[in-house]
Amino acid sequence: MAEHHPTASPAVLALDIGGTKLAAGVVAADGTVLSSAVCPTRAPEGPDQALKRLIDLGRQAVASAGADLGGLIGTGIGCGGPLDPYTGVLTGPPHLPGWVDVPITELARAAYGHDAVLDNDGTAGAAGQWRFGAGRGSDHVVYLTLSTGVGGGAVFEGRTFRGAAGNGGEPGHVTVRSGGRRCRSCERAGCLEAYASGTSIAERAREGLAEGAGGDSALNALEDVTAADVTAAVRAGDPFATALWEETLDLLGSGLTSIVNLYEPEVLVLGGGVTRAADLLFEPVRRRVAAQAMGPAAAAVRIVPATGGEHAGLLGAAAVAFERLT
Amino acid sequence: MAEHHPTASPAVLALDIGGTKLAAGVVAADGTVLSSAVCPTRAPEGPDQALKRLIDLGRQAVASAGADLGGLIGTGIGCGGPLDPYTGVLTGPPHLPGWVDVPITELARAAYGHDAVLDNDGTAGAAGQWRFGAGRGSDHVVYLTLSTGVGGGAVFEGRTFRGAAGNGGEPGHVTVRSGGRRCRSCERAGCLEAYASGTSIAERAREGLAEGAGGDSALNALEDVTAADVTAAVRAGDPFATALWEETLDLLGSGLTSIVNLYEPEVLVLGGGVTRAADLLFEPVRRRVAAQAMGPAAAAVRIVPATGGEHAGLLGAAAVAFERLT
Repeated sequence: MAEHHPTASPAVLALDIGGTKLAAGVVAADGTVLSSAVCPTRAPEGPDQALKRLIDLGRQAVASAGADLGGLIGTGIGCGGPLDPYTGVLTGPPHLPGWVDVPITELARAAYGHDAVLDNDGTAGAAGQWRFGAGRGSDHVVYLTLSTGVGGGAVFEGRTFRGAAGNGGEPGHVTVRSGGRRCRSCERAGCLEAYASGTSIAERAREGLAEGAGGDSALNALEDVTAADVTAAVRAGDPFATALWEETLDLLGSGLTSIVNLYEPEVLVLGGGVTRAADLLFEPVRRRVAAQAMGPAAAAVRIVPATGGEHAGLLGAAAVAFERLT
Repeated sequence: MAEHHPTASPAVLALDIGGTKLAAGVVAADGTVLSSAVCPTRAPEGPDQALKRLIDLGRQAVASAGADLGGLIGTGIGCGGPLDPYTGVLTGPPHLPGWVDVPITELARAAYGHDAVLDNDGTAGAAGQWRFGAGRGSDHVVYLTLSTGVGGGAVFEGRTFRGAAGNGGEPGHVTVRSGGRRCRSCERAGCLEAYASGTSIAERAREGLAEGAGGDSALNALEDVTAADVTAAVRAGDPFATALWEETLDLLGSGLTSIVNLYEPEVLVLGGGVTRAADLLFEPVRRRVAAQAMGPAAAAVRIVPATGGEHAGLLGAAAVAFERLT
């Protein structure tokens, strides 16, 4: 029965609930993604339809992997907070309007007939990078995703950090510019997220252009500037984009320094769409953190790209399932 | 032998190495300080004389407690970093010039004939507040001391947090004002320590007065304004002092919010001389953090004064001895 080989080694079903898409996959204990499937969340339709699609997506992933639900260890679920990882309830994540007190692990257990666990997707992401990804080999791993927002989590001494309220740290919400831009997620002024998320980089570019600061920047010609447009313009030598990017690097360097000073990690893993800037981002940020962080913490930390690509969310959800169900 | 009663229950020798004073004490397992002794560090004289005084001070504390070295569990030592808590070596703390690679636990073992452990005093302080003090009863405790500098540490899920390099977090070194005052400890601009330490509050007051911003403030008449002078002037309704203090509260509130967002504690313990401001500090800071921190973390945290007073350092050193030697 060679077709069923994947289920011979321990595997879990991973579900990743995002504001725009739902993902499911079967992941083996070594981090191999045996199958994956994606569909839109359509968050405005409310939880009922989306949860039905999510449960079906899970079954589809299990079938694609040639596995069966009974042969899996269980299901790991990652979602943005706030949530309760111990009761498995989504208490009211802002990116999912109407999803209030959804007992997601109970729903998964009833549907799949095996155990299920829930974690904040930032926490799960850190666990995933530590167990399967760029943080492997270290027991002090901090993970940040620079995406629509800035989220993340941490593993300290080989233990996933969940904090008193169970949602782990919120590394996107350290101040980088006092009295600065209002943060869309927490409404405080000057958070890291308000400058270094893909959304914020694009907004800052559009604001600058609207104020006429763009000069003869090629970005003026674009309908709806994105963070990727900004970094493309940096590579083309565009002065407006370059100044905006340097400011972004300074603020990201400042925020990461605060994070490194507080978390004292050995590995700081950066993922999310903004890190596609690659060499425009990593070396400049490493230099800034090395120059600014406190002695031993600064000397200890390596700043590296996340692994797992589009599967990073599933690998995170799988990691917490392996951690908590085995 | 009623005089020897204290040593009947388990106890440790605690040593606290500060830049201005050395302290030693015998501490019982319930946190009772059975004896204590203090002498000046005289840091400029270098380590040899000071280490001799420290070792003698420990013997004196043991004798005062009516204990004997052989009857104690061992010695716990707290000191400012950087240091290596696993090898027990002070690698070069900036407040102790010339103390480079001092094998302090080895010296204590040789002198006292029992085991010894070393930890960063911020880490030890957190362990002390968790085990004996204001953090008792919670397993998610963060401790900050607002003193000459701003230091601290954390206990996560009932485990003392040491980080990858062993010095734990540096909560005094989150950015609160981008491009702001240079931090004396880490040289970065705009750290919490550069605004909320006693030293910084006093310096900011003196700078304001020197610039003529004091108006008819009573502080103008003082030779050398201290943080305590500032808060006394606030109580007297002095407008200059009040404006300076409000700014301090705003920046402290911002820094503590970043810390709460990252560490997600249940109890945030504040100690050090600046907290003598009592009601001028705690309620205003609680309001600011409650208004700004992310949902679950903000809802979870209680901000409370440190306990232990002048013995807080000894209780910290004792806590890590009980943790690591029993």
